[in-house]
Amino acid sequence: MDKQVVKVGLMGLGTVGTGVVRIIRGHQEDLQKQTGLAIEIHKILVQNLHKTRSVSDLDGRITTDANDLLYDPEIDVIVEVIGGIFPAKDYILTALEQGKHVVTANKDLMVLHGGEILQKAQQKGCDVFYEASVAGGIPILRALVEGFSSDRITRMMGIVNGTTNYILTKMSQEGADYEEVLKEAQALGYAEADPTSDVEGLDAARKMAILATLGFRVPMNLDDVEVKGISQVSKEDIAYGKQMGYEMKLLGIARRDDDEIEVSVQPTMVPASHPLATVNGVFNAVYVHGEAVGETMFYGPGAGELPTATAVVSDLVTVVKNMKLGVNGRGMVAPYKEKKLKDDQKKVSKYFLRLIVADQRGVLAQITQLLADNDISLDQVLQQPYNGGQQSEIIMVTHHAAKSSMDTVLAALSDMPVIHELKSCYRVEGGEM
Amino acid sequence: MDKQVVKVGLMGLGTVGTGVVRIIRGHQEDLQKQTGLAIEIHKILVQNLHKTRSVSDLDGRITTDANDLLYDPEIDVIVEVIGGIFPAKDYILTALEQGKHVVTANKDLMVLHGGEILQKAQQKGCDVFYEASVAGGIPILRALVEGFSSDRITRMMGIVNGTTNYILTKMSQEGADYEEVLKEAQALGYAEADPTSDVEGLDAARKMAILATLGFRVPMNLDDVEVKGISQVSKEDIAYGKQMGYEMKLLGIARRDDDEIEVSVQPTMVPASHPLATVNGVFNAVYVHGEAVGETMFYGPGAGELPTATAVVSDLVTVVKNMKLGVNGRGMVAPYKEKKLKDDQKKVSKYFLRLIVADQRGVLAQITQLLADNDISLDQVLQQPYNGGQQSEIIMVTHHAAKSSMDTVLAALSDMPVIHELKSCYRVEGGEM
Repeated sequence: MDKQVVKVGLMGLGTVGTGVVRIIRGHQEDLQKQTGLAIEIHKILVQNLHKTRSVSDLDGRITTDANDLLYDPEIDVIVEVIGGIFPAKDYILTALEQGKHVVTANKDLMVLHGGEILQKAQQKGCDVFYEASVAGGIPILRALVEGFSSDRITRMMGIVNGTTNYILTKMSQEGADYEEVLKEAQALGYAEADPTSDVEGLDAARKMAILATLGFRVPMNLDDVEVKGISQVSKEDIAYGKQMGYEMKLLGIARRDDDEIEVSVQPTMVPASHPLATVNGVFNAVYVHGEAVGETMFYGPGAGELPTATAVVSDLVTVVKNMKLGVNGRGMVAPYKEKKLKDDQKKVSKYFLRLIVADQRGVLAQITQLLADNDISLDQVLQQPYNGGQQSEIIMVTHHAAKSSMDTVLAALSDMPVIHELKSCYRVEGGEM
Repeated sequence: MDKQVVKVGLMGLGTVGTGVVRIIRGHQEDLQKQTGLAIEIHKILVQNLHKTRSVSDLDGRITTDANDLLYDPEIDVIVEVIGGIFPAKDYILTALEQGKHVVTANKDLMVLHGGEILQKAQQKGCDVFYEASVAGGIPILRALVEGFSSDRITRMMGIVNGTTNYILTKMSQEGADYEEVLKEAQALGYAEADPTSDVEGLDAARKMAILATLGFRVPMNLDDVEVKGISQVSKEDIAYGKQMGYEMKLLGIARRDDDEIEVSVQPTMVPASHPLATVNGVFNAVYVHGEAVGETMFYGPGAGELPTATAVVSDLVTVVKNMKLGVNGRGMVAPYKEKKLKDDQKKVSKYFLRLIVADQRGVLAQITQLLADNDISLDQVLQQPYNGGQQSEIIMVTHHAAKSSMDTVLAALSDMPVIHELKSCYRVEGGEM
């Protein structure tokens, strides 16, 4: 290759795009020393040419026409940080069609259309990297693909959404209500005006689908991920959890047992002594368990201008190194294992239950009998007066139970006249890794 | 490349070597799917042909003659897990001379002769990888070289020696004496019969030199690392530290400020709320701070048969992928920055001091005056009776101070007649990342 400069077309100049410009400009010398080539932001796609921006010297580089980037023969690599499916998907496929490499931070796109995009990349001999799409500043995709290439990963547990972790941390530390903390998070910019994607667990589910695909080498879809958000989590749940030695986290869990897989995102009780329990605020962490390596954890900022941009630019460095070596599009391993999902009988975990029951003799006996009939035994029980003693509140943590059994129990509980309200039911995880 | 099988010469069949055999055999299908090639352990160098071993089917593969591996034209890659400098260095240089790629777990060798080895590899177009040499199962070298390639790392803090972390954890949790816990660690196989290399910090210093070289891209020698071990740490130091909100860790610290570097390994007080404070037992962790990414941490097993072997085999997978792409020996970035070490005036940290002083009025005033004269102010002070009230014990935590100032203070303290004993002086780190 006789190039001296690699020219980048940057799509999007929001938070992450601005970070990418800053890092490429600020670390130019280091980047050049590592790759042997200068990296230049050649053109930038924006929505509004006249907006005031925090990076300068963009004259002549910004455009509102994507074709100015996609069909510029001088541009070697497209960095896509506009997000969303449309028009990002078309842009990326066109870029690949034009023989340009792609670096993207777009988890939605990679989850929904990753297969198509990676196939196109392979056809055209182009690289597609997307480290920034999961857990911003943590190089976790690289770790899964390369660092643990020799191992068989059996479990991943991730706190991969900063917004919900911020909310749960605040609720736990201050005993505050969900609604109250959500408003505060919105005021601080940690949560969107429409927070649905974060608080209902969808964002985390996309990231878990990507982690499971790469970690288990099985093509996972978003539909394969069972999702439950945090909007129903109450401060009482968190307080009782604490009392019993747990912290509440929105935990993505991907497990593989005998080559059968389950992936879920749900509010989960984690033992206070577990490393994931101490991951607070907007930080992310991914816990990886491999057959050979055992327990490992990766911790860092999950979002933010510069952390996410470091992941994007590190991917860009890999593209440039590959260009120098002439091996673009040849380093990726497509998922090669057949997908087998666990049925509910094989999904096993501990459960935390909170019930409001009639204040009469024998209720607890009825409940424990029901659990026993379904092969579920109890680890901890707490019963106390509720509603001024007119009712009782029962909080239980079970031993390991099949999801199918627990579903049967929950249905039966709701049919029992002495059970006035099933307040909550959460998975309990992380005790026995 | 028209090979179907990559043949490996394994040097050493101790703990890690056995793990390598197990993983390559157990994960053969996965490895082949990823690399497109089968990986076969072709020959194994051992010391004793007749020893009983926990892996079977070695017939005809084991030998006591290194030349059987080094000069076997069928062998593509040498995996060196015998450790030590001699004869490992000669073996590796000969292997490279013969055009064989090298994967090693040998930190001693890479610290002392890494430059020579990597230069020879480059001449011969061969790969040399050594992920297993630092923090066993944690893919930290990859993270530094690739994951953070776009960032400027400013600080690394590592718990990189499992033996000492086991000892300090036990001392902290059980209030036990150093000697007592060391004996227990030896009985459990966590410490060697001669524990010097671990407990005096030398093992950790080698790993920190490797981390600093890769993280800062500056060629660091072992001599550049200031080292102090844990053999003088008392249970009282740990107990007082706890009382003031700290856990004692043998912490490797590598810092870069204005392109000037300091690397040290020493017993260090870490705030109990810091993620490193909760890394217990034989686990390792490396905390990385980058200008752009901010704070990240990597946690996992630091040693052990299978964790270390995963790192070795992951390196082997990279070698095989590079063989397939025909790019061996071309992916490494040699350190390219000039080494500038900080002088003691620029080494700044907080300090924990414990003194036994005469029980008379004005002693504390004399000490604080001495500190003030050297521009050192205090964050916390605790004074209490000692030796049945015949003396006083003073425990202090300072604000940030230059090492040169602290050295002046320590020298002056030892000259003051009212100071009967300077019990201990430790760095305090991790509060203000």
